[in-house]
Amino acid sequence: MARVVEKFGGTSVAGPDRIRIVADHVARRRNHGDEVVLVVSAMGSETDELLRMASDVAADPPGRELDMLITGGERKACALMAMALSDLGVPAASFTGSQAGFRTDASHTAAKIVEITPRRVVEAVERGLVPVVGGSQGVSGDGDVTFFGRGGSDTTAVALAHVLDADYCEIYTDVPGVFSADPRIVAEARRMDLVSFDELLEMTASGCPKPAMRAVELARTYGVELHVRSAFSWMPGTTVTGEEAMEHAIISAVTHDGSEAKMTVSGVADKPGVAGRLFRALADSDVNVDMIVQNVSSQGVTDISFTVPRLQLDAARSVAQGLIDELGADNVAADDDIARVSLIGAGMQTNPGVAARMFETLASAGINIEMISTSAIRISCVIRAGDMEPAVGALHQSFELHKDPAERATGY
Amino acid sequence: MARVVEKFGGTSVAGPDRIRIVADHVARRRNHGDEVVLVVSAMGSETDELLRMASDVAADPPGRELDMLITGGERKACALMAMALSDLGVPAASFTGSQAGFRTDASHTAAKIVEITPRRVVEAVERGLVPVVGGSQGVSGDGDVTFFGRGGSDTTAVALAHVLDADYCEIYTDVPGVFSADPRIVAEARRMDLVSFDELLEMTASGCPKPAMRAVELARTYGVELHVRSAFSWMPGTTVTGEEAMEHAIISAVTHDGSEAKMTVSGVADKPGVAGRLFRALADSDVNVDMIVQNVSSQGVTDISFTVPRLQLDAARSVAQGLIDELGADNVAADDDIARVSLIGAGMQTNPGVAARMFETLASAGINIEMISTSAIRISCVIRAGDMEPAVGALHQSFELHKDPAERATGY
Repeated sequence: MARVVEKFGGTSVAGPDRIRIVADHVARRRNHGDEVVLVVSAMGSETDELLRMASDVAADPPGRELDMLITGGERKACALMAMALSDLGVPAASFTGSQAGFRTDASHTAAKIVEITPRRVVEAVERGLVPVVGGSQGVSGDGDVTFFGRGGSDTTAVALAHVLDADYCEIYTDVPGVFSADPRIVAEARRMDLVSFDELLEMTASGCPKPAMRAVELARTYGVELHVRSAFSWMPGTTVTGEEAMEHAIISAVTHDGSEAKMTVSGVADKPGVAGRLFRALADSDVNVDMIVQNVSSQGVTDISFTVPRLQLDAARSVAQGLIDELGADNVAADDDIARVSLIGAGMQTNPGVAARMFETLASAGINIEMISTSAIRISCVIRAGDMEPAVGALHQSFELHKDPAERATGY
Repeated sequence: MARVVEKFGGTSVAGPDRIRIVADHVARRRNHGDEVVLVVSAMGSETDELLRMASDVAADPPGRELDMLITGGERKACALMAMALSDLGVPAASFTGSQAGFRTDASHTAAKIVEITPRRVVEAVERGLVPVVGGSQGVSGDGDVTFFGRGGSDTTAVALAHVLDADYCEIYTDVPGVFSADPRIVAEARRMDLVSFDELLEMTASGCPKPAMRAVELARTYGVELHVRSAFSWMPGTTVTGEEAMEHAIISAVTHDGSEAKMTVSGVADKPGVAGRLFRALADSDVNVDMIVQNVSSQGVTDISFTVPRLQLDAARSVAQGLIDELGADNVAADDDIARVSLIGAGMQTNPGVAARMFETLASAGINIEMISTSAIRISCVIRAGDMEPAVGALHQSFELHKDPAERATGY
């Protein structure tokens, strides 16, 4: 018998049929003797529809009211899921974030969990009920409804799994797990049985869409074992843990991100405080800077390049241009025709040949590299947007990611 | 300066445009120095849509989950209304029933208010905000979300007006007030400036659709002055009070109800306990019996006729048929081709000629009367369904309800 927190995303509960299918899965699971706690997201595109209505009534809706509005989506899905379970003879009870004991700060639309007192959820489990908890929501100290932000249901699930001391937490999505590359781009992409938290974080940060990064960070912090699975195939999926398996591959996956743009501030004085001034100003304007590369200084001046979400390019450009004089910069250039490809792998650190082979592979494919950034378990290259798909395919092939890890060539 | 609770029904807030129109009205009102507290219903047909989804996932959804689901409709409308107000520069804050302090019993889908502690609403008013309260909802002693039932937003508004000591409570609907007959049937129907609680209760009970009966009862109990108005024309509407005006008409209105069916249990032994046995059995089966008529006994046997909602006719018939032997009845007959027309008026009691003229008017129009029932301020006749509209027109004409009350003929 296991205690499991299962989280179902929007596509998994998009309509009454899907809700009934998920309820059937939970009923079977329960018949096997497992204790199940559910977390559900809003149905299908409901959150988008609610946001559209908000923008129809107000140019700049207050965060408090946005949270009141948006959390209704998860609440609706919860109630319907509890009904569907009851209809199958499984006693169930829906709980809002507040009822489930999620106390948060008052940062509306992006609230952070302060404390969880899951008394009602625990009582429900003890009484043999399946609790169905609304994802991504809680209540502030003032008694106002708060929303964690998009993707926050994963955070709800991981946090509940931790405080309920669950054996593991299953994140059900519309894909069957974590892949060695996006299967829409690389036909031979391989579902990974196992991935580490660190690798998944790097993958999420570099374009892999699921699960939400904040939830993975939380899972790593509290050692909550995650299973990333499909609510459409119900196949085993990918297990995410903090433990490194013996047979772990050097390279796990190729990821890509086509949603960013590149900015270059060139001819900047190479002296202390310059980068700090630039990135503090960007942060104050709520621009999410991702990759940052500063070239080697030549004759006392240097170039700073960084990537930002394409939607924030205009904001980033005006911040940077406003600082041209202060930074003593020559020029600010923006480029939104770029993409990023990344190689993820826990073993890369001790295999310096990996980076070389990555660059060689891209060169053989005639792809020019414009920026490079590395971490202990990731190498990212910024390339032309049009080169993204060929690059992913070439790298997946070169590192034999379609093969079982044990059967891949080693030694780069 | 007045303190006013304004309640807006579903059609008044059916979409973003309507919500902005209502917000504009509230902003103007506030500029005149009035303190406004809003209560809103779910948008348009949202409650029906939520109920349809419930029936799509479960044959018999638990009440607790229905309440969690349905109250989301009012909550959504509240948040959007608060956003629309903010957009016009009017500080506002939405509150769920629970946040507004509505404590109820645990009778899901038909919860009754136990206590109201409107601390947060009062604080909001004191801080100069417009509180926007979700109608028809509260929280039980167990912390579960509860729903008052359809039309419950009127109850929320009246109860709030009472506990906030408001000057009056405005019920905004899609019609401009209370009429002397349904304007769709009688072109000359007259909007009444004034109506008493008792008259409005009799009108509501006999087919006049708004406001909800329970809210009128509550308003009468606590002496809350009601204004029934249109959120489309913004005209003055009808005032409902406990005070009888000097110029009050003998007859106020003609109402009709085409939603019922008639049942007759004939040849019943005329002895104590028979009617009690029958109507207890119907009540136990949740059949809402309305008009009850028992004919004069002839030779120790009698007929009992009663009306029930047409949707409950099958249930009522099987209850009655199951009791045939026990009651010693000859026969159970059902008839769903009937309608009821009623004459409402506070002065009827002391004007016995009114009933006579009503029957004469129907006879002149060739309309047969099948059942008669009277109260102190109402006379109802059950007739053929096809006769309903001609009957309403003839009665409205005969009692000169199109004229100003002071100009009508008196002495029947």
